[in-house]
Amino acid sequence: MPQFKAPVDDVRFLLHEVLDAQQLTALPGYEEATPDLVDAILDEAAKLSENALFPLNQSGDQEGCRFENGVVRTPAGFKEVYETFVAGGWTSLAGDPAYGGQGLPKLLEFVMTEMFSAANLSFSIYPGLSHGAYNALEAFGTETQKSIYLPKLLDGSWSGTMCLTEPHCGTDLGLIRTKAVPGEIDAVTGEQSYKLTGTKIFISAGEHDLTDNIVHLVLAKLPDAPEGVRGISLFVVPKFKPKAENGSWQAGPRNGIACGSIEHKMGIKASSTCVMNLDEAEGYLVGAPHKGMRAMFVMMNAARLAVGLQGLGVAEVSYQNALAYAKDRLQGRALSGAANPDKPADPIIVHPDVRKNLLTMKAFTEGARALAFWIGLTIDHQTNNPDPKARQEADDLVQLMTPIIKANLTDMGYESANLGMQVLGGHGYIQEWGLEQYVRDARITQIYEGANGIQALDLVGRKMPAHMGRYLRRFFHPVAEFLEQNRNDPTMADFIRPLSKSFEQLQMITGLVAQRGLKDPVEAGAASSDYLRMFGLVALGYMWARMAKIAGQQLPQANGHADFYDAKLKTARFFMKRILPQTAALALAIKGGAEPLMAMDVEQF
Amino acid sequence: MPQFKAPVDDVRFLLHEVLDAQQLTALPGYEEATPDLVDAILDEAAKLSENALFPLNQSGDQEGCRFENGVVRTPAGFKEVYETFVAGGWTSLAGDPAYGGQGLPKLLEFVMTEMFSAANLSFSIYPGLSHGAYNALEAFGTETQKSIYLPKLLDGSWSGTMCLTEPHCGTDLGLIRTKAVPGEIDAVTGEQSYKLTGTKIFISAGEHDLTDNIVHLVLAKLPDAPEGVRGISLFVVPKFKPKAENGSWQAGPRNGIACGSIEHKMGIKASSTCVMNLDEAEGYLVGAPHKGMRAMFVMMNAARLAVGLQGLGVAEVSYQNALAYAKDRLQGRALSGAANPDKPADPIIVHPDVRKNLLTMKAFTEGARALAFWIGLTIDHQTNNPDPKARQEADDLVQLMTPIIKANLTDMGYESANLGMQVLGGHGYIQEWGLEQYVRDARITQIYEGANGIQALDLVGRKMPAHMGRYLRRFFHPVAEFLEQNRNDPTMADFIRPLSKSFEQLQMITGLVAQRGLKDPVEAGAASSDYLRMFGLVALGYMWARMAKIAGQQLPQANGHADFYDAKLKTARFFMKRILPQTAALALAIKGGAEPLMAMDVEQF
Repeated sequence: MPQFKAPVDDVRFLLHEVLDAQQLTALPGYEEATPDLVDAILDEAAKLSENALFPLNQSGDQEGCRFENGVVRTPAGFKEVYETFVAGGWTSLAGDPAYGGQGLPKLLEFVMTEMFSAANLSFSIYPGLSHGAYNALEAFGTETQKSIYLPKLLDGSWSGTMCLTEPHCGTDLGLIRTKAVPGEIDAVTGEQSYKLTGTKIFISAGEHDLTDNIVHLVLAKLPDAPEGVRGISLFVVPKFKPKAENGSWQAGPRNGIACGSIEHKMGIKASSTCVMNLDEAEGYLVGAPHKGMRAMFVMMNAARLAVGLQGLGVAEVSYQNALAYAKDRLQGRALSGAANPDKPADPIIVHPDVRKNLLTMKAFTEGARALAFWIGLTIDHQTNNPDPKARQEADDLVQLMTPIIKANLTDMGYESANLGMQVLGGHGYIQEWGLEQYVRDARITQIYEGANGIQALDLVGRKMPAHMGRYLRRFFHPVAEFLEQNRNDPTMADFIRPLSKSFEQLQMITGLVAQRGLKDPVEAGAASSDYLRMFGLVALGYMWARMAKIAGQQLPQANGHADFYDAKLKTARFFMKRILPQTAALALAIKGGAEPLMAMDVEQF
Repeated sequence: MPQFKAPVDDVRFLLHEVLDAQQLTALPGYEEATPDLVDAILDEAAKLSENALFPLNQSGDQEGCRFENGVVRTPAGFKEVYETFVAGGWTSLAGDPAYGGQGLPKLLEFVMTEMFSAANLSFSIYPGLSHGAYNALEAFGTETQKSIYLPKLLDGSWSGTMCLTEPHCGTDLGLIRTKAVPGEIDAVTGEQSYKLTGTKIFISAGEHDLTDNIVHLVLAKLPDAPEGVRGISLFVVPKFKPKAENGSWQAGPRNGIACGSIEHKMGIKASSTCVMNLDEAEGYLVGAPHKGMRAMFVMMNAARLAVGLQGLGVAEVSYQNALAYAKDRLQGRALSGAANPDKPADPIIVHPDVRKNLLTMKAFTEGARALAFWIGLTIDHQTNNPDPKARQEADDLVQLMTPIIKANLTDMGYESANLGMQVLGGHGYIQEWGLEQYVRDARITQIYEGANGIQALDLVGRKMPAHMGRYLRRFFHPVAEFLEQNRNDPTMADFIRPLSKSFEQLQMITGLVAQRGLKDPVEAGAASSDYLRMFGLVALGYMWARMAKIAGQQLPQANGHADFYDAKLKTARFFMKRILPQTAALALAIKGGAEPLMAMDVEQF
């Protein structure tokens, strides 16, 4: 049977020692987010993940969602656990206190997203989608919409969706066909209503049995819409129209939006993926007409970061299970002589190639966690720092790192799940051991909320050139500063030298891609995936160097906790010597340019 | 719906133009294997693959095998298609004519294995396993055993298995516990019988409803067996004991070997993977007592090459489906301006990153096919060349390349299936489009018949040092010779320069690994996976340079077929510029050595 322990020690190390999350208590609104409170929340989240979410992960996969007469039934136990989840206040953690939220830092939401995804990715998608709907309505909704929907999304009694994709368009939303025609003034809310008609596909949590109501945020076109993405508007379309009852809002009459079928997928089988049919469904405009893409990106950027954390979560649980197997499974002898002479064989963790797989997973998982939480902390500055310059700088860094976190953490998460499976050999391929589910589940994270190729284009096409490279500087400057500060520290030489080398390669290639891309955007596109991978490796290298610095400082005074810091230093050295050199080959491949990709005629493929 | 066309044009290019397979007609026994006959067989195999095997691939996955009251039912249609397969003579292609085989070159068997695996991997495993049993019995069986089993395996009425793995041991067969106790002399066959008791797991085709009988080749220990792998013997254990009837052998009384359950797996769901319980099952010794590992490796080496071809096959079908989608799906606009201005969007094949995915698949698939078929041709020299020196040299090369083909072709096959899925985006994750099945099916090829980490150890631990590097020279010499011959050909410069560079890196790293490994075997183990990958990339580079040479020669006179050769040259350039440079990073990682892997204490992981 698979196992899972929430990585609480590592989270504490990052929050309290590496990132100094206590700094957040100095920001208005976060005064109460003290280390003690954070620790207490961590312990509760760990309990929930281990004891409630994880035990339903495998059974949820095997049972899957069922679609019966227009209704989606989630697997056994999901409804009960969702009630526990709501009762624990987990749907309202970082929500605005004005609407019933707890007003805690977004950084904590990052921590929870990883933990819940690791324990049960399919389950975590249901409350996860509500965040996106909350963000869009909070940023762009009318006061009426906020007063109706935000409290319900935060108390977990209603959930949210994002209805973007249609059968003929996913990436290219300019092609959508769903129509919104102005209707009556809604008698209950006093808002202008629109009648929406069309078909949306791949709608996660589009229909399910966990909540009283589902709040769909739907992209559609008004009758006078301009062509393409400049003619898209965002609407809120509730499954049940709100009605006022005893001074609060409740689910009222059924609206014309319904699930037509659910997809049979490779993984995340306990998460419903729905075809949603809108047949003159009543919706209400969110934000200005034709400005839906802006609101969509508010949802989407948060969702992309969350998906990166999903990749990280699956890597963590895969690592734990591969490690347990590698310690337990006796097979063969250590190449240097029997490690376990009184037993018939040695545990396979003695073998260098098995260790390479495990260390690759460990180095990725802990490095990615550090990178993601650094950006989580940055988001709290982006929203709550009183200094406009600090907010701007934080925003720049978040913009830059969003595609990198989304694509790199999901690519490396999938690779980690596969490495974990490989450690288990034949047992990895069998359902009961769990690894094959992690591989199947992790695979979607590279695809949804913008496939990773789209993230790479976002990086080279939007984020790199933005404001003459201003976003890039928010990453390049702290790295250069860190390298400078530690250049003469002999205890940091193992980390500073390789990081400097890869960082120089990244700067050189950034210049090359920017220069070539200015002349010909095809060159930027041809470099994009390799460039994003290279950037992600350097970012992980930077986080590993930062962690090594702290670990080296803590080690001499680490009573009883020395193994933790020593392992950090060893993992950092592994990353520098055996993983980071990949940047050299990526640089060479990028230099190869667009010509080898574009030379082939379509009919020659 | 997924689609598949057998890659007959590419196979012909390789057999007739690159590898000059006609040379085989000069070898005793292969006189009739003329290009005309080969072409006719190719056409028949293509028809069978496209029209019979492929249409059952998706339904077979969805239905899977069922285990009911000790019996395994294959999915609907499998039995009928197996009858067609047998009637077409596909089970006897390369078999010995003395036992009813057609005596055709093994190279043709390589071609068929790829084609059948591409069309329906699960189905192809059933006849595939019979090959292994045939090879072991042909090489080590008594005359009686050969006369009973070989005709039945060749005419397809009986099938074979390899029963190696037990619950507590897979890789380390020295640990097996299945016992064989001498019994009576068998009244029917006159052979000494043994009673075998034990449990075998992960037995492909261990039980099914396609044939009258199943011939299990079982590893077990005799009572006086020495410890470890030197005490393992091989037995043939038929499901039904043979009885003579009207002058031929038929399935007689039931033997004490039975399927206890089947595994629920990530993929190859239409292939039964069985727990086999032996309860005093009657078996007959194959080869000498305690010498079972030698016979096992005869089966295993052939099986490893076949598994490499399975990886290749799944890559081919994934490429075809990704390409069809990329040409058809309209989404966004080319970065250089609309390619398709009269349509609402351009097909996604205009995008450089989509092309990079497709070209990576194409370059791998065609390069891997060339490499595998080169080794297929070499096997025919190994078995049929009258010159003992030529046989020895062929054997050396096959020994060297077996782990490289097994591991590299399956790793790259899995990567290709994943790239194909990524091209389809969300549709790739949905069952009906087929790609997610290819990913799930391909995944097992990296694991079974020796996980790829074991292949890497085989390469650095056995094949590299064997006979003072003699095996290595069988690859290094032809590559060096080819580079020398073409060094001054300006039309080959695009290929010779990058190949020379990567080949030099490989030679340098080979020296380093050999030198370090002599002092400390842990160093060889720590380099093994990266070294195998590096070797595989150089081997593909060599095959691409050879193909480019031929394509360049044929292009000027290629009436109506110019696109084929031009595409070869363009794909070769892509491989050299964008893929082969990976060797640089692998060299750096290998130089990083064992220390970063071994430094961590087990409890620090």
